[in-house]
Amino acid sequence: MAFNNRITQMLGVRYPIVQAPMGWIARAQLASAVSNAGGMGIIETSSGQLDAVREEIKAMRTLTDKPFGVNIAQAFVRDPGIASFVIDQGVRFVTTSAGDPTKYCRQLKDAGLIVFHVVPTLQAALKAVDAGVDGLVVEGGEGGGFKNPHPVMTMVLLPQVAEKVSVPIIAAGGITCGRTMAAAFALGAEGVQMGTRMVSAAESPVHENWKNAIIAADATDTVFLNQFSKPALRALRTQKTTRLERELGPSYEGPPVMAEFGNALDLYFGGDMEASIALSGQVAGRIDTVKPVADIFAETVKEFEDTVAAMARRYT
Amino acid sequence: MAFNNRITQMLGVRYPIVQAPMGWIARAQLASAVSNAGGMGIIETSSGQLDAVREEIKAMRTLTDKPFGVNIAQAFVRDPGIASFVIDQGVRFVTTSAGDPTKYCRQLKDAGLIVFHVVPTLQAALKAVDAGVDGLVVEGGEGGGFKNPHPVMTMVLLPQVAEKVSVPIIAAGGITCGRTMAAAFALGAEGVQMGTRMVSAAESPVHENWKNAIIAADATDTVFLNQFSKPALRALRTQKTTRLERELGPSYEGPPVMAEFGNALDLYFGGDMEASIALSGQVAGRIDTVKPVADIFAETVKEFEDTVAAMARRYT
Repeated sequence: MAFNNRITQMLGVRYPIVQAPMGWIARAQLASAVSNAGGMGIIETSSGQLDAVREEIKAMRTLTDKPFGVNIAQAFVRDPGIASFVIDQGVRFVTTSAGDPTKYCRQLKDAGLIVFHVVPTLQAALKAVDAGVDGLVVEGGEGGGFKNPHPVMTMVLLPQVAEKVSVPIIAAGGITCGRTMAAAFALGAEGVQMGTRMVSAAESPVHENWKNAIIAADATDTVFLNQFSKPALRALRTQKTTRLERELGPSYEGPPVMAEFGNALDLYFGGDMEASIALSGQVAGRIDTVKPVADIFAETVKEFEDTVAAMARRYT
Repeated sequence: MAFNNRITQMLGVRYPIVQAPMGWIARAQLASAVSNAGGMGIIETSSGQLDAVREEIKAMRTLTDKPFGVNIAQAFVRDPGIASFVIDQGVRFVTTSAGDPTKYCRQLKDAGLIVFHVVPTLQAALKAVDAGVDGLVVEGGEGGGFKNPHPVMTMVLLPQVAEKVSVPIIAAGGITCGRTMAAAFALGAEGVQMGTRMVSAAESPVHENWKNAIIAADATDTVFLNQFSKPALRALRTQKTTRLERELGPSYEGPPVMAEFGNALDLYFGGDMEASIALSGQVAGRIDTVKPVADIFAETVKEFEDTVAAMARRYT
């Protein structure tokens, strides 16, 4: 199936499917698989390891000749030189997140990049559009990772934003297959972003224990943490996060939640699921096998096509 | 537009749109407007006022000649005679909720009723199907009212259940317009249920202060309460529910949350928004006018049709 909409045109991709910028995970091994499979691979900066990121971008040039992008996670990389850094890498597409959309938008756009800002609320969406972004990643609260403390779910947020803005929208939060992609498009998106599904992919560099935990999880097996403070986050339920769920209440006075990540790499790549926090969305409950990215996209696109066709046959 | 699917066939309605069974609110004035507009009006029993309910059902016979149903809220009406009571009222359609699906299913079906059970998880869905229900109301955690303490959102729950059951599904949670109806159908539903949207309708009997609070609310203006106990619930943010959000933590030892409803009627019909808890879903953020049910349904169906047609034009 050939997609032709504003997202495929702006991003220069075959499929309007974007890989989320998970810290440490969204690197060349995974991102090149995404780009080579027709989607938009993204390199992360939220690890803060800009030297490593530079090498990952260099590696991308050897692993794929397809477009890819970079995410600027503003809360994690406060260095004002981050925009210049990204511009210098020569990528055409950047998503900015977790910060003020006015901060880097002009500089990035003046350098010819296409800028999408990640938003968790209508208010944030309107602010980003005012800042001049080319598009939005609209992220519902069922998704994994760092979240707004007042999460709005995709079924509500996406049409709410789509009714009020004219820029193209990539939907995130709850997206893992062709049915959810079709639903997102019905709600006003022209593209989708997958996070947890990409963490579980064959080319994802995380330890198999994390992939197996996603496969074992039911949809009820995530926790929403720290909603009385910032950042809130959604992660897999473990002994550690079950404890944090109870501790991180309104009167919590311990160390900030970020301290609880400890040495995240012991979980991410060492496989100790209690060593840190395994950020994951509720779609963990719908993922039951590790598959190559190309297979995930092929199945997604086929199911999207079948879903739209079945709806059309039945209801037009 | 003429719908023709298992829901319209089983329920005998023009539109596969069901009104949620809000306590005290889902009575003849609102339910007859829903049935007359082509949807499925539902009379509640969760108020526990069965004498009043009997009168409401009697009133329905004079207000509409269209099909309507009754909800059995099992946690609220523990009287084992409730199934006989509903059978005696002569309705054809019943939803059961907040309890064991095996409890009344057989008796209701033996009496010729069509039985749908309301489920918040895949596990509950499979149990209901095993019990022999005719269909499911699959309710995502972004919806208002009493919820599972581990809420799963519609974008995740609906396709998860649809992939595993063959009975027809009515989607609830986040549904308020034609776009969300189309999204729900893409995710596997053949009908939708609206709660908050019906509370806000012109024919809804609630005080205008509640309707105005829904209209004023953003999508971030609900709270999810009591998730460390049962029942959890989603309601509009007020001073009272903001206090409860902080108090009802894991070590809460005060009176059960139900005691906090106080005299609910002072809020529902007296308009004192701090007197009780105004159960509402996140779609409150997408509702900006009070409209008659017939207008809501006409706009919903038109938008559903337009959305499906636009998807078909663009992506088939």
